[in-house]
Amino acid sequence: MWTFQAPVADMLHLMDRVLDAPHRWAELPAFAGLDADTAGEVLAQAGRFAGEILAPINASGDLAGCEWSEQGVRTPAGYRQAYASFVEGGWPALACAPEAGGQGLPQLLNAALFEMLAAANHAWTMYPGLLHGAYEVVKAHGSPELRERYLENLATGRWLGTMCLTEPQAGSDLGMVRTRAEPNGGGEVANGVPLSLTGNKIFISGGDHDLTDNIVHLVLCRLPGAPAGTKGLSLALVPKVMPDGSRNAVVCDGIEKKMGIKGSATCQMRFDAAQGWLIGEPHRGLAAMFLMMNAARLHVAMQGVGHLEAATQNARRYAAERVQMRAAFRPDGALSAPADPIAWHPAMRRVLHTLQARTDACRLLAYWTAMWLDEHEQHPDAGRRALAGGHVALLTPVAKALFTELGHRSADEALQVWGGYGFVHEFGIEQTVRDSRIAMIYEGTNEIQAVDLVQRKLLDDGGARAERLMQELEREATACREDPELHPWAEALEGQLAVWRGTMSLLLEGRHQDPEWPLRVADDLLAAVGHVLMAWAWARIARRVPSAASAGGRTPQQWRQAARFGIEWLLPQAQVHWLRARQRSAALPFLEA
Amino acid sequence: MWTFQAPVADMLHLMDRVLDAPHRWAELPAFAGLDADTAGEVLAQAGRFAGEILAPINASGDLAGCEWSEQGVRTPAGYRQAYASFVEGGWPALACAPEAGGQGLPQLLNAALFEMLAAANHAWTMYPGLLHGAYEVVKAHGSPELRERYLENLATGRWLGTMCLTEPQAGSDLGMVRTRAEPNGGGEVANGVPLSLTGNKIFISGGDHDLTDNIVHLVLCRLPGAPAGTKGLSLALVPKVMPDGSRNAVVCDGIEKKMGIKGSATCQMRFDAAQGWLIGEPHRGLAAMFLMMNAARLHVAMQGVGHLEAATQNARRYAAERVQMRAAFRPDGALSAPADPIAWHPAMRRVLHTLQARTDACRLLAYWTAMWLDEHEQHPDAGRRALAGGHVALLTPVAKALFTELGHRSADEALQVWGGYGFVHEFGIEQTVRDSRIAMIYEGTNEIQAVDLVQRKLLDDGGARAERLMQELEREATACREDPELHPWAEALEGQLAVWRGTMSLLLEGRHQDPEWPLRVADDLLAAVGHVLMAWAWARIARRVPSAASAGGRTPQQWRQAARFGIEWLLPQAQVHWLRARQRSAALPFLEA
Repeated sequence: MWTFQAPVADMLHLMDRVLDAPHRWAELPAFAGLDADTAGEVLAQAGRFAGEILAPINASGDLAGCEWSEQGVRTPAGYRQAYASFVEGGWPALACAPEAGGQGLPQLLNAALFEMLAAANHAWTMYPGLLHGAYEVVKAHGSPELRERYLENLATGRWLGTMCLTEPQAGSDLGMVRTRAEPNGGGEVANGVPLSLTGNKIFISGGDHDLTDNIVHLVLCRLPGAPAGTKGLSLALVPKVMPDGSRNAVVCDGIEKKMGIKGSATCQMRFDAAQGWLIGEPHRGLAAMFLMMNAARLHVAMQGVGHLEAATQNARRYAAERVQMRAAFRPDGALSAPADPIAWHPAMRRVLHTLQARTDACRLLAYWTAMWLDEHEQHPDAGRRALAGGHVALLTPVAKALFTELGHRSADEALQVWGGYGFVHEFGIEQTVRDSRIAMIYEGTNEIQAVDLVQRKLLDDGGARAERLMQELEREATACREDPELHPWAEALEGQLAVWRGTMSLLLEGRHQDPEWPLRVADDLLAAVGHVLMAWAWARIARRVPSAASAGGRTPQQWRQAARFGIEWLLPQAQVHWLRARQRSAALPFLEA
Repeated sequence: MWTFQAPVADMLHLMDRVLDAPHRWAELPAFAGLDADTAGEVLAQAGRFAGEILAPINASGDLAGCEWSEQGVRTPAGYRQAYASFVEGGWPALACAPEAGGQGLPQLLNAALFEMLAAANHAWTMYPGLLHGAYEVVKAHGSPELRERYLENLATGRWLGTMCLTEPQAGSDLGMVRTRAEPNGGGEVANGVPLSLTGNKIFISGGDHDLTDNIVHLVLCRLPGAPAGTKGLSLALVPKVMPDGSRNAVVCDGIEKKMGIKGSATCQMRFDAAQGWLIGEPHRGLAAMFLMMNAARLHVAMQGVGHLEAATQNARRYAAERVQMRAAFRPDGALSAPADPIAWHPAMRRVLHTLQARTDACRLLAYWTAMWLDEHEQHPDAGRRALAGGHVALLTPVAKALFTELGHRSADEALQVWGGYGFVHEFGIEQTVRDSRIAMIYEGTNEIQAVDLVQRKLLDDGGARAERLMQELEREATACREDPELHPWAEALEGQLAVWRGTMSLLLEGRHQDPEWPLRVADDLLAAVGHVLMAWAWARIARRVPSAASAGGRTPQQWRQAARFGIEWLLPQAQVHWLRARQRSAALPFLEA
């Protein structure tokens, strides 16, 4: 009953017509030959993989979960074959450089790929989810020998990778990591030296599994004499299988029993004088990982968009099929029947429109962020790269926190459409609610995203970065002003930008007397900025409607309907966030134990 | 790690000092002898049962779930012993009449009992959850023979009861119920006649189990020649075991695999010419069930309060213990350490205060509603009974929808306090998130509560019932006006009452031109009215602080802190709901399939 059909026409419309992606690719030498037709073909193929290979093993994988034994972790039925087909299709290499065996396509298309994978089967998607990040780290910081040995195997997906960061006492606080790395030989401790690692890691996604013969662990650790805190962290590459074919002393001691993504093995890992090699400079491990942080956070944001889409399309279908009670009012031409589709009841219309408007806005913002990321990495002009980098820095924590929260909360709201059936496993929506919850936590909790946004992205430069983004957003409002039909969107967006600017002034001034103020209201500021961005997205969607209904796509009228619902019913929520963000005097005392 | 300790001191403070329950009991002959000490003793004993007997089998019951076989349903380990101890303690009979073997205590204490049970173990609580309702129906509508045979067995909990309403095609829409009931003999079809029932029911909580020797099913069905729709429904009593000891043709064909409350058997039931007896008049089945509807909905509302309390106390404890990162600011006298309790971080303080303020307000409102229910049932003055009945009618749908939504959503927000551990089963909060979700669905979905509130409770009498409740609330604002320290609460409440009144006028007038308007905004209206009621609760709590910290209770300062947080940080959300409720022009079109 639960299905996933990739909304390829919607996705391509947003990329091509709403965001002008092909014109912007033309400015980037790496993607200059890429056009909308090719992108559409990639999306269509990815959509078929997600819908036909991954979606059918989503519910069964949740029921079966992973099995742990001392011999290793066994993934649910079908996972291994699906992964082989993923590798065969060349999907791991989509955004990897051609010289490393990759296809050299934009981050934008990779983001769309992972949106579809997560929508179809979040648990399975965890395995290849860290591949591109591991590839980036080895490519940028690995010694020539390590690059030679591991880069192509990662790019092609022949071997999978993990990020071993968390320890029981070190979750959000990586400065408390204790895993020790002892250099094996004498001499200078430099990039690529062999190390012996000892320590325990928890919450390691894909720490062990049966999908690939080897697993490449990237491990945060401490060299002897390292300073305390995050400035003493180094990064090591530790393979499950050594180059000589012997088994390394990396042991999976067990897997977690979790709320969701049960097909993904969340491993407790023990490094028992395991052999590895330093990646990058000593004590610069966190910097090496931060290189990939924006991409990794955007990757998690895409999971939010995927869950939004999955909940939306399944809820719409169920609401159209399920007949229950007469609606107070009916669409024109409806026959008189003892009961109506629940999609006609006003409360259900509210839910369904809410889901669609959020899906459209979040997807557009996600693609926009990915485009800036591509420009930041690939644009020939340094000024443009810097501008793009600033936009990415500000957009990324908002995208991660906002989309994952909306992904989870929208799935939870959608569950109500099924009534009692929503609580039953076989209808699928309850699994989406459970699976989507983790994205609010990992890759930096959403609260940490908010602190990052407020402290490092909004205020530390006196608001200059935010002002540059607001000018970008303002161009959309100006464009909407030219068409009287679009004035409601222009007004909504202008109103939001005015409050944002006013709030920035208040915070920049007021934080000197009350430095904790921005932290007390960080979550509200993130949500408020998120609403400004959604207002921009609804405006742009309303302005750039398709010229006609494309095959499988929505009509101009349908796109505008969702964009109108967004500003009328969803944008009002921004008021509360701005109000709370501005009320400096509201008390937030320490609690007595 | 997950524990539940009943907050008896808090509960008693709200009943005794904040709501003056003993003074109001004095006016009701049935409870005239009841004082605060006795009530406190009942709460303390119930709290011990919940904390010591039920909480320890909460997580294990979730993992084990129920087992179905053709011989019947087996409940998780410990459930049977816990139920025996529940019966032995006399708890099923708490609010049953003394003449039926009950203890004759108020609904208020019964509500508090079930709040604690649900907080400790929602799944287990499902079994006795319908007992009081079944008792009420048999008492009010059963024939003398049926009362003789079943009433005391239900009141004492020797036998458990079910409500068999839902069928696959008849969920929210009971008018579509098809189960047939054929009179066994000739003659007039009157109260108590033997019937033969055939049909299928789904989602029957406790439809089969191993806790009691007999199960008493109350079954919604249709007599021959009954009118279509809800006006043709009758009610039958169908026992699992017949009076002669033989097994009746009531079969449990399977149980659902659910998101939560896995220890509760959700049964698919088949009636194969099962033997039963008519309860009440033919075709008046729904009216007989509606008798207990307010009590049943309040019962579900208490589950929301229970989940709020469980999430709050566990999150506070974990946040005080878990050390992670330095806080930007620290309480006076804190030592300098490399990392601080996460309870000191502003984002966590926001979550913890939010949980506490919601728990206080919802609990107070729940108790207040239960007190009106007691007065409605027991007050010697007919005018007072009518007034109380009006308050109950309006408060009940709000309590059911608001508390269950806040119970679930607050547990979901609390999960964030645990970070990655929150997603792991053994820390318990993820189970609370899953268990709490069902309360938003059953006993009338929260959307149905909103339609009930708007159509039948707010508008059908031109707003008279709402006006009487507002006058009641206004007295609190007036009382707060007398103390300058309480002016912020007076203003908050007065402001809310003014918007409520204004919105009532708009709706009462505007619905004539646009009859669908109140339905489009029903969910917002319920949430908005819910916020007015919480504003009243925070005002009353702020005004009636304890004279000093009682044993195990909070200080006056702590009660006011939560009440202040409520109006400063949570009440602003009401603005959005009022705004949306008032914007008649916002479009909510039908969706194309």
